This record gives sequence, C-alpha cells and structure tokens, in this order.
Amino acid sequence: MDFSFDTRTQELVERVTAFMDEHVYPAEETFEHELAQLEDRFAWTQAPVMQRLRATAKEQGLWNFFLPGDTGGLGAGLSNLEYAPIAEITGRSGHLGPAAFNCAAPDTGNMEVLHMFGTPEQKERWLTPLLEGSIRSAFAMTEPDVASSDATNIATSIVRDGDEYVLNGRKWWITGAVNPDCEIFIVMGKTDPEASRHRQQSMILVPRDAPGVEIVRPMHVLGYDDHEHGGHAEMRFTDVRVPASNLIGEEGAGFAVAQARLGPGRIHHCMRAIGVAERSIELMCRRVDSRVAFGRTLSQQGVIREWIAEARVAVEQLRLLVLKTAWLMDTVGNRGAHTEIQAIKIATPKVVQEIVDRAIQAHGAGGLSQDFPLAASLAGIRTLRLADGPDEVHKNSLAKAEIARHTTAG
Amino acid sequence: MDFSFDTRTQELVERVTAFMDEHVYPAEETFEHELAQLEDRFAWTQAPVMQRLRATAKEQGLWNFFLPGDTGGLGAGLSNLEYAPIAEITGRSGHLGPAAFNCAAPDTGNMEVLHMFGTPEQKERWLTPLLEGSIRSAFAMTEPDVASSDATNIATSIVRDGDEYVLNGRKWWITGAVNPDCEIFIVMGKTDPEASRHRQQSMILVPRDAPGVEIVRPMHVLGYDDHEHGGHAEMRFTDVRVPASNLIGEEGAGFAVAQARLGPGRIHHCMRAIGVAERSIELMCRRVDSRVAFGRTLSQQGVIREWIAEARVAVEQLRLLVLKTAWLMDTVGNRGAHTEIQAIKIATPKVVQEIVDRAIQAHGAGGLSQDFPLAASLAGIRTLRLADGPDEVHKNSLAKAEIARHTTAG
Amino acid sequence: MDFSFDTRTQELVERVTAFMDEHVYPAEETFEHELAQLEDRFAWTQAPVMQRLRATAKEQGLWNFFLPGDTGGLGAGLSNLEYAPIAEITGRSGHLGPAAFNCAAPDTGNMEVLHMFGTPEQKERWLTPLLEGSIRSAFAMTEPDVASSDATNIATSIVRDGDEYVLNGRKWWITGAVNPDCEIFIVMGKTDPEASRHRQQSMILVPRDAPGVEIVRPMHVLGYDDHEHGGHAEMRFTDVRVPASNLIGEEGAGFAVAQARLGPGRIHHCMRAIGVAERSIELMCRRVDSRVAFGRTLSQQGVIREWIAEARVAVEQLRLLVLKTAWLMDTVGNRGAHTEIQAIKIATPKVVQEIVDRAIQAHGAGGLSQDFPLAASLAGIRTLRLADGPDEVHKNSLAKAEIARHTTAG
Amino acid sequence: MDFSFDTRTQELVERVTAFMDEHVYPAEETFEHELAQLEDRFAWTQAPVMQRLRATAKEQGLWNFFLPGDTGGLGAGLSNLEYAPIAEITGRSGHLGPAAFNCAAPDTGNMEVLHMFGTPEQKERWLTPLLEGSIRSAFAMTEPDVASSDATNIATSIVRDGDEYVLNGRKWWITGAVNPDCEIFIVMGKTDPEASRHRQQSMILVPRDAPGVEIVRPMHVLGYDDHEHGGHAEMRFTDVRVPASNLIGEEGAGFAVAQARLGPGRIHHCMRAIGVAERSIELMCRRVDSRVAFGRTLSQQGVIREWIAEARVAVEQLRLLVLKTAWLMDTVGNRGAHTEIQAIKIATPKVVQEIVDRAIQAHGAGGLSQDFPLAASLAGIRTLRLADGPDEVHKNSLAKAEIARHTTAG
Repeated sequence: MDFSFDTRTQELVERVTAFMDEHVYPAEETFEHELAQLEDRFAWTQAPVMQRLRATAKEQGLWNFFLPGDTGGLGAGLSNLEYAPIAEITGRSGHLGPAAFNCAAPDTGNMEVLHMFGTPEQKERWLTPLLEGSIRSAFAMTEPDVASSDATNIATSIVRDGDEYVLNGRKWWITGAVNPDCEIFIVMGKTDPEASRHRQQSMILVPRDAPGVEIVRPMHVLGYDDHEHGGHAEMRFTDVRVPASNLIGEEGAGFAVAQARLGPGRIHHCMRAIGVAERSIELMCRRVDSRVAFGRTLSQQGVIREWIAEARVAVEQLRLLVLKTAWLMDTVGNRGAHTEIQAIKIATPKVVQEIVDRAIQAHGAGGLSQDFPLAASLAGIRTLRLADGPDEVHKNSLAKAEIARHTTAG
Repeated sequence: MDFSFDTRTQELVERVTAFMDEHVYPAEETFEHELAQLEDRFAWTQAPVMQRLRATAKEQGLWNFFLPGDTGGLGAGLSNLEYAPIAEITGRSGHLGPAAFNCAAPDTGNMEVLHMFGTPEQKERWLTPLLEGSIRSAFAMTEPDVASSDATNIATSIVRDGDEYVLNGRKWWITGAVNPDCEIFIVMGKTDPEASRHRQQSMILVPRDAPGVEIVRPMHVLGYDDHEHGGHAEMRFTDVRVPASNLIGEEGAGFAVAQARLGPGRIHHCMRAIGVAERSIELMCRRVDSRVAFGRTLSQQGVIREWIAEARVAVEQLRLLVLKTAWLMDTVGNRGAHTEIQAIKIATPKVVQEIVDRAIQAHGAGGLSQDFPLAASLAGIRTLRLADGPDEVHKNSLAKAEIARHTTAG
Repeated sequence: MDFSFDTRTQELVERVTAFMDEHVYPAEETFEHELAQLEDRFAWTQAPVMQRLRATAKEQGLWNFFLPGDTGGLGAGLSNLEYAPIAEITGRSGHLGPAAFNCAAPDTGNMEVLHMFGTPEQKERWLTPLLEGSIRSAFAMTEPDVASSDATNIATSIVRDGDEYVLNGRKWWITGAVNPDCEIFIVMGKTDPEASRHRQQSMILVPRDAPGVEIVRPMHVLGYDDHEHGGHAEMRFTDVRVPASNLIGEEGAGFAVAQARLGPGRIHHCMRAIGVAERSIELMCRRVDSRVAFGRTLSQQGVIREWIAEARVAVEQLRLLVLKTAWLMDTVGNRGAHTEIQAIKIATPKVVQEIVDRAIQAHGAGGLSQDFPLAASLAGIRTLRLADGPDEVHKNSLAKAEIARHTTAG
Repeated sequence: MDFSFDTRTQELVERVTAFMDEHVYPAEETFEHELAQLEDRFAWTQAPVMQRLRATAKEQGLWNFFLPGDTGGLGAGLSNLEYAPIAEITGRSGHLGPAAFNCAAPDTGNMEVLHMFGTPEQKERWLTPLLEGSIRSAFAMTEPDVASSDATNIATSIVRDGDEYVLNGRKWWITGAVNPDCEIFIVMGKTDPEASRHRQQSMILVPRDAPGVEIVRPMHVLGYDDHEHGGHAEMRFTDVRVPASNLIGEEGAGFAVAQARLGPGRIHHCMRAIGVAERSIELMCRRVDSRVAFGRTLSQQGVIREWIAEARVAVEQLRLLVLKTAWLMDTVGNRGAHTEIQAIKIATPKVVQEIVDRAIQAHGAGGLSQDFPLAASLAGIRTLRLADGPDEVHKNSLAKAEIARHTTAG
C-alpha cells in the first residue's frame, strides 16, 4: 500500500497547478464579462479568453487528460488514478478549468463512448473534432415526464425505418446543448419496448442540424442558467431522421453503454467537486481571518474553527475514497469497482454541499452573492445529488448488495 | 393554556385563505411574465396584476394586518398573535402574498418604526403613503466592509452640520431599493463614534432623490436578483444632506430603534418561512404520489416517507414556538420575549431550509428549476440564516444568558 | 390562544417543585445506597427512603396525578394538560420523582386500563391497591422472537378452556416485573389467530403467583439492569391458568385497549424526558462554568455555547408540542390527537438523547460515569426510541397520512 | 499510489482472521461466564479461556504485532501500516481479540514508551515481562479535578527527595488498574510547575505494591464497569516513594513522551473501532434480513437500507484515512502525520458511534441488551470521543493550523 503519487503524476500536477495559477484564475473575471457581451451568452466556446486558454493548453500538451489507455496520440493516455488529481485541480475553477484542458463534461463522457463503441466512421466524423476541441457535444438521456433514475421509464422512441431511425420524444437537462457550437447529441431512447428490462434502450448520434431537433428552453438551477458551459436544454425530437449507421453499438446496447460511461464520469465529477471543496475551504479561511466581530477575528471563534476542521477531515476521507475507486477502475475494471462507484456518488456531493454552505455562512451575505464563487458552486454541487439518479437510488442498491454479502452462502 | 385561535383570528384566517385561493395563487405565473416585460424588471409595484391584487385586498379590508395595537384606523390593529397565522398563509406565495395585503418587508418594519418613533411630520410625509401603499421604503443598515452583526462596526457617518445632517458611507443588501418606487430610506449610521457602544448609532430618513444617493448594483442571491420584490441594492451615500428633522428619535437612539424593529419582524419572517415549509411539503407529497420508479410510487418509498414525517413533526414544533413568541410579545413585550425572539431566528431558517432541500430532492432535477417555486424558496430561506446577523451570533448570545441563569444567584 | 398555565396548574407546579427540592433530590444518593443493601436489589419498593417519600407525598395529597377526569376521589383528577408539567418536574429525578407521587410507569398505564375497561371486581381486586400504592404491576406485550412493532406478530396464545384461559408464550422487556412486589401482569396474547388483523389479540390479568409464571432473567440496557424501577424481565408463561373473568374487556379487544393505553403514556414519557433534558442542560451549564482549559472556562467556548443554545431552542419546541398534544387529548380525544401522539414519540427521544449526549461530552469522562445522572439518563432515553415501536414505524405511518391529506379528495 | 496490501500483510490478515474464527469468536461467551465466576471479576488475565487463547496465539507467533521496527525478536516488527489491518480484525471481538495477541491497550502504549525511552534496567524489569505477557500495566494521566485535555492543568506532584521521587495526587479513568495483575503504572505528574508550559511534566514508573498506592474505586461507563479489561480505576497516590531511577527519560520530558505515545495508539484505537463498525454492520444485515414486520423483511425497508449504505460508505472512507495516517507515520513520522493523527481521532469515534447506534435501532430493544455485543460496543466507542482529550480540542487545534496554512506567507 502506497499513498504517494508516482513521479509522472506528481509532475503533471505541478504543471497543471502552474497553468491554473498563471492562466486560469486570472481569467475568471474576464470570462464572465466576455460572456455577458457575446451575442449569444450560451456560446461560451466563442469567448476570446476561453479560446486563448484552450490554445495555450493544447500547445503545451495539457490536453485530453481524461482519455485513458492507448489513445493513438489523441490524448495523454493517463489512467483513471493518474487523471484524478488533475481533475481535482481543474475543478477549483469550475467554469474555466476543465474546459481549458478539453476535459469538460459532457464531452469527456461522449468521447469515451465514441472511443469505446464508435465505428471508424463515427470516430472520424465526431470523435476527432471533439478531441481537437473544434466542436462540442451533449448527452440526451433524462426526460421530464418520468423518474429517469429508472432507465426502463424512458419514453423517447427510436424506430427503424429502412436505412434510417426515426426519433420522437422529449428530453431535459441536456447540459451544453444551448451552446450553438454543440453539434452532436448522443440520444438514449427505446428501440424495443418489448425486450427485457435492460435491452430495450439504444443510443444514437443525432446532429444538431437534423430537422425536428428543437431546443425548447434553458432550464435554470437555483436561478442560474449555467450559460458558462452551455446551459441545460429542454429539447424536443419530432420525427427526427438519422442514418441507421448513427446507432452506437447494436440495438439494445443502450443501457450497457450508459453503464460503461458512468464509472469514469463519476470519478471526474467527484474529483472536481473535491476541488470545489478545497477552494471553498481556502476562501473561508482567508475570509474569517480578515473579519472582526465582538473583538476577535472570526477565525478565533470556536464554531468557525469546528466548521473548518470538519471540512478538512471530510475532504481527506472523500479524496482517498475517490482515488481508491479510480485505482480499482484501473486494476479490476468497472464491475469490480461497482460498490465504490456508487459510494463516491453517495458521499461526495452531500459532503461538499455542506462545506460550501458553511463557507457561505462564514462569508456573511456576501457569500450568497456574485462577489464570490461560492454561491454558484453550491448550485453546481447541488445538481450532483440528482445527476445520474438521486443519491437515494444508489444507497438502496448499495445496501441491497451489502445485505446479500452478509446473509447468503455463509 | 389554550391552543385554539380565537374566533376573530379564525375568521380572518379563512378570509385570507380564500383570497389566496381565488386571487393570489392563480396570479403567480402572470406576475412573473409581467415582470419580464416591464421596462424596469425591478419595478414590481408596476406590474398590472400586482396592482389589481392590492386594490382588491385593500377594498376588502385585507390590508396592513401587521400594524399592532391602536392604529387610528390605519391598519387592522391585530396583535402579534393574531397576525402570525395570517403571515404564514401569505408566505405560501412569497412573491405575491405579503405584498398583496401591504404586509411585505421591509416596509412593515419601516412603518412600525415611523409609527412608534416618528414625529407627526415624519408620519404624515412618509407613514401615511406607506400605509396607503402608494410608495415603498427600504432599510439601510448592512455594510460591505465590516461584519455587520456587530453594530459597533458600522462605518457610515451621519454628521450634524447646522440644520442638516450629512451622510457618507456604503451599504449593501438594501432590500427593495432597486425598485424606483422605493422613495424613502431609513439609514443607520454613526453620529458619535466616541459614545458608549450602543449610543453611537442613529437612524435618519433619506429620500431617494437626495443628491448623493446612488444605487450601485443589485446583489444576487445564488442566481436570483430578487427583482420580484425590488432586489437588494449595493448603495453609496456621498455627502448626502437631509434636514435635521429627518432624524428618527434622538441622536444615539439608533441601536434601540433597531432592536425595537427586530421583534415583530422576526415573527413575520418566521411565520412566512413556515408557510414556505408547508407549501413545500404539499408539493412534495403531490409529486411523490405521482411518480413511479422501480415499480412503486415514490410515496411508498420509506426514505421519502421519513422526510415527510420529519418535515411535519418539525413544522408543528416551529409554529408553536413562533406563536408563543408572538404571544409573549403581546403580553410581556419585546424584552420579556428576548430569548424566544432569538430562538425562532435560530430554529426556523435552518429547519425550513432542510425541508425545502428535501422537497427539491424528491422532485428530481425539476425541483431545482424554474418550473417549481422550490428553488427560489431555498434561496430566500437561505438568506434568513444571515439576515440581521448570522445564526451563530444569536446562539452565542442565547447560550450566555442560559448559562448565567443556572450559575448565578443560586 | 393562551400559553400560560391556569392558576391551579401553576400552584400544583409550585408545590411539586418544592417537594422535589425538599425531599426528592436530597434522597437520590440515599436511595442508591439503600438499594445496594437490600437483599433483592430489584425490590425498590422496599427501600426505606422510597417508602418515606411516598408516605409524605400521599399525606400531602400529591398522589395519583396521572389519572384523568372524575376519579371518585382516587386521584387528583387532572386533565392531561394539567398533569403534563407535573410529569416534567418528576422526570428530573427519574428514579425517584415519578414513584414518589405514585405516577410511575408502567403502573400508570395499567391503572388507566383498569379504570377504563376493568370490571368492578377487577377494579376492587387490583386497581384499588395500585392506586393506594400497596402493590405494583407490569404490562407484558413485547416478545423476543418477533418484531413486536407489528402487533399481528404476537405469538403468545390465550386459549379458552371452560371457565379458564390458558396462556403460553415468551415475553421480554417486561418493565418492573423483577421486583417481587409486582403482583399482577396485564398480558397481551392472541385468542383468535384467525380473526381480522386487529381483532386477534386480547388482554388478560395474570397474578404473579399463578403456576407457570416464570421470571427468566433481567434484561440489561447499556449495562444497566434498571433495578431502581424493577428491571425489565424476560418471562415465560407455561400453561398458566387464570379465571375467564380475568379477561379485560371482551375477546379481541386487546389491540383497541393497547391503543387507548398509548396516548397518555406517550405524553407522560415525553414530558418526563423533557425533564431529563432540562436537568441535563442545568448540569451542563454548571459544569462548563466551573472548568478551565486553555485559559478560559468551557462556558466561554463557542462550540459549548452552541450546544447549550441548540438544546434550549429544541426543548422549548418539544415542550410546546407535547403540551399541545395533551390539550388535544383533552379536547378532541385520542383519535383527534393521533398525528400529534405520533409526532411527540418521533421527536422527543431523539432530541433529548442528543442533548444528554452533549451534556456528557461537556462533562468529560466523568459524564459517562456513576458520578452524574447523565449516563443513566442516556440509557433510559435511548430505550424510548424503541419502546412501543421504533421511531421508524411511527414516521412511516405519520407520513402515509400526510401524503393522503394532500393527494386525495382535493 | 497503490491500495493493495503487500503479500506479507495479506498473509498475516488471513492467519489472524482464521485464528479469530477458530478460537476467538467461539470463546466470547465462555469468557463472560468465567469472569462472572472468578473471585475477582476484574482479574480477567486469570480467566482460563483467556490464558488458553494467549498461549495458543503466542505459540503460533501471533504475538506483539503492535511493536514497530526492529524489536530484537520481541515482536513481529510490523510497520504501522502492516499492523493496522490486524488491529481492525482483533477489534471485532473487543474483549478478547486484542488481548489474545498481547496487543491490548494500555499495555501496548506503555511497552512503546519503555521500548523508546526506557533504560536497560527499566526494560529488563518491566518491558520484558510485558512483552512476554506475564504482567499488565496502566497509564495514569487523567485527573478528576481538572480539565485534563489541557496538560498544564495536571496537579499530581512528583518531587525529588534524595535518591527518590515522592508522588502525591489523584487520578481517575486508569484503565486496566483494577486487575490485580496490573503490576506497574506509568504516572504523569509535575516535577517543575515553574518550568515552561510543556516542560513541567514528567513520567515515572510506580509499582503497584509501593506504599501509598491506592485503588479507590472502579469508574463506570454508562452501566459497565469494563471488568473484562481490568476496569477504570480512580486512584490515590499518597506520599508514594520510588527510586529516582524509575523516571522515564529526563525531568520535564513527560509531555514529549506523552505525545510520542499518542500517534500509534490513535491508529490502533481507530482501526479497532473500524472493526467494531464492521461487526455491527454484519450483525445489522443479518438481523434485518431475518425479521418481518408489516409483510416485509426489515432488510427491504428503505430507511434500513439507507442506514446500511451510509455505514458502508462511511467505513470505507474512515479506513482509508487511518491507513494513510499509518503510512505517514511510517514514512514521515509522528510530526509529519500530525494533522492526520488529529483527523482520525475527530472522525472515527463519532462515525462509529452512529453506526453502532443504528445497528442497535435495527435490532429493536434486544440491541440494547446483553444478548448482542452492540450495547457494550456503543459504550466503548463513546469513551473514545473523550479519551486523550475531547474531540472538540482536536478540532480547534486542527482548524488553527488549517487557517494558518491559507493565510500566512502567501
């Protein structure tokens, strides 16, 4: 057992940290202003500072860290465990960090899907420009009319018609989709409602410009429209026709592909959330040391100190759990890491939400405002407790396995 | 001891409930649309549906419930205990309810201050139009540069110069101030920094049109600008001159007036928050009964039921505590109710925040969006944990008194 | 609405408080020593100081407060609301207070059952000596082999055989039963396993000396055997025969009688628990004000103050909820108070457990020891989260009703 | 970074697990019965089954795992990281496991102290028989009259008088001391109250049979006297004289020695506590799968599943944090691991207490009784929140360092 990073990771951590210090943090305010002045405030890819950041990072080879294994020169080829600490650092500046290195969701997950399951044609047409960073993508699974945590509820239909598939359905919370540069959607729907529970669904590639694809409106999260990363669209697909060759994998493979997409995504999300927690702790410490009430700095108040101590203790535990999960993914694979992948989803958002909430409280009313990144962080973290299924669904499933482990065969 | 409302209260509760059902809830969506179309989205008083609601309520005598005691016909003359259940009901529709009955903060507190401490001239000039509902007001106390929970930190200066006072200072979180119909500010500042701790501050009336009064920007709360009730302004007062007769009470009375303003305001805030909790529970119950996952409605899931039960049990306790506090205010006054006034501030926002958060979780991602009132409620309630001092300051003070009670004199 | 006690209650509160100060608190240590020296340490009724306390209380007419309504001179005839504050005060000294006034469970509930449902013969034979305090009783419902929170699980059989009933079964947690002065048991069993769900059970009176009645062993609670109130017995009933006239009510009435017994008992338990909380707060305040660490008394530490404030705020809410429940019981009856009776069971033990736990923490290791009443209080309160069904069962049931209220008929 | 145990550890884990299965768990009940029949129930070392277990373990070389580094053949010479998983396994049977392998506190810490700081004579006289397991020891630091978390409060005096030191003072919570086989005490006292804060204290060896050494009484923890590991004594030292050569290290070294003793002890305590948590989860899973209420097993209830999931997720995080701390101790030493040593003390007892409490709740009343190990576990774990300083002291200190890290020099 060894808790130190290997040399390569350590060096990469240092390079990325230096890039963040030199380029990313100083750009935060500029990015916000530039977005406000764009004709389409959701077109974040067009903000000059974002384009500069991405060009510089690419030039320095700080690019596509997320893609594991042999990538044929397309990415850094890091393992999950090697990428995890990088993800944490980029998460400290949530609007800029991940995108600067072409490591922002949902593109990362979509690229993985194409990398693992795409045909050579699909890869050339969509994966290459995504890896180059010249287009963006979205992943359309959640639906407004049903509890989407139960995949069998999905109602969007994908019907074969000759050489084409025809899509009909409504989706919402399609992150990134409001950005006009989002050119391609991976859409989950049902090809066979009569098949067995987990063979009904398929995934298919739908270009933005296909007739019948419609962005209905941007969804808000606690007042934010999240235009900084392309918003969350409600969408309608009406008799949308795409070539049959746009199917990802075979018919009925949708659920399996979705599962394969989940594991690394969870690790990324959780590590970035830990970055948010770290930055919140840092801001909290600085704030409380600079404010005086009733004759003492806030940093001398016992209750404030308790918050800081509990935050530190919680984050150390979370990080280790996520890193171990990444290590399991690398060594025994998605299936062997199943419990841990559930565990990090259950543990991380809740703990980080509490840390950010307390950092806000320690800031006074300013903490809720646009003057600090805390309020936006709180909104972002809050969504993670619902993203790819509410925590409660995962707890239920994890517990079932735990009970079985203690009560069967032994 | 008697836990039933008297007949008068009971009747009023029924009338207000009927008004809410008939007029207020149906107007919620309209109000939002009208605001979006106003030239100045912060000028909520100018939304046609709001004007209609207010006219109707006034006509029906459902007006100025908040003003206690003998009001010379200006208000309903309800006691705190009589008004409390009304406040809860109006709080269920936070953007419309309180304003419809001319019972919205911060006007209520400002009217109380003028009612209790104003000169006849001040009353005629400002209190009368406020009670009639023809103008709005704001209360300018919090400052950006200091921990405002400690009143001695206040830095705005109010300097006597002949027949005038001259103000200089910065304020923020001045609720209602961005609305151009907000015509008058009660400003807290220091007239004598050398006086004893609680005699340094004074309050003074500053008209919006006085030269040197400046709205710098609206503050955001999470992603909301709260334009529905006039936003929260950052303000600058630069060499602002007002007649000496604008002083409220005498020099050095500012802290005492602020304390007097607090008690009833807390009760109103807390009862409205309880209304928010009740509406959230109602929405949660309906939602979970209508969604199916894994073969059962969410309302049959044990964890969801636990949330609902805990919410009900918590709200029942909160309401009783706030009602008792109102009763104490009526029977033994502000000072006799001191501990309880702290207690409701400590207890209410935290509990209601948790209830709303769980209602959101039960709604899935939709709960965070603009499609339900829950997300905006969460933001509103969250501010209460910081408004007029963070909870922690009140806990510290309450505990000090509790310890003293057990350790001194026997 | 009126939150003050009436004069009669107020006077009684003062008399009982004076009695506690003069007689009960000073006797606490003596009682412990005397018990240790008795031949049978479970025979608490035989401790001289206990006998003196009871004689004095009876003489002063401070006796049988718990029995509501017209008692024909047997008790004080207090309403639930009048008795509630008395129960709190007696609960402050849990081992002595309730027993001193002949208001200790489980006798109180058993007397209520006999008072409401007993035949004249049953009353004369058992109720009269119980009210006089010359014998004790126990209530035998819980069974070791099943989840007793579900009454249909009960396995003890009560079979009619001529003029007798024959009992067979195992029970545990039969409080008070190890005391040899416990002369009578009310036993719950099944007379008709084929009847509808809530008509299978009956209750029957079983004298201690009936052949086949066996005390197997005393159960422990966190290391305590609770001999101060007669322990908690595991019992076996083997072919126990009692006259048919010992049946309480009719065959199949057992569930209904159990329900009727529950309401007042909950109020008593909860008010006594609030007394425990109050005494714990008092002890905590005194302790922290007398200990110094790192240059300040513990009472000046922010975290300790937070505990004290939260305890005070929580207890105020709890008490109001329990008092309201008592008032509902008096005005609309058991059924009308159903939700509240569940609510106080859900809320009280959990909150009081936390308060006692923090009082212990504030005491340092001493808090866990025999030197303070806190550790024993923690154990006692902990049992309440399981007594008459775990909290979770009640939450589930309360939530079901709450959901129904919002989703049906409207 | 590597999360797998090395082969040696893995093999040892398997051997110890096998020993637990074969010898320890089956002996639990026997040990309890034998203790009850001993003349002195605190003399646990004399219970035949305990002697057999220890002989067998020693024979198999499963002995003194705790002593790190080169032990000259006295122990297994494991690193902290290698011993940690063993400690967890032994902790699953808290009364027997650690003692069976001669790895029980407080002997382990005392042996470490002698190993690190003892003179050759001290080692021969005391360390050798302790390592052989022929005598027991205790560590006397905590005092009843002061808040012992602040070491400067210590009042016991150690005064040089010629070739001797004379001790006077009171101690309590001296674990293991009631066992008559506890032959030696390491006593902390003040040799120089005028020295600087952390140079006032010294440690000295005091044999049980020295005149003036007195066991006043056993302290209780909740209702337990913890006779299974020798109880917790209150002690008095009255003019106790020991040779000057009994001093450990030099005068004034007491605080430094105490600090050195802390690190490994924390890791052992925490890992054993994790063993307690694991066993509680196991018992909970089995219980809930075997009980039926309202038509379903408890294991199918959502709330129960939530408890199990949260327990699993929490334990995984805790274990990683403790293991990392052990690794830091091994690689960068006590000082480099300072924050983590505080963190595991803050995190572990609180989380494990909650897990055990829920396991009890899931068991129903039985969980609080002598029929399951849960209640005793709860009591044991509860003491850890106070042992070597209440959690709050450690939080305060950790936070101070965290704040400094973010606010100075950068």
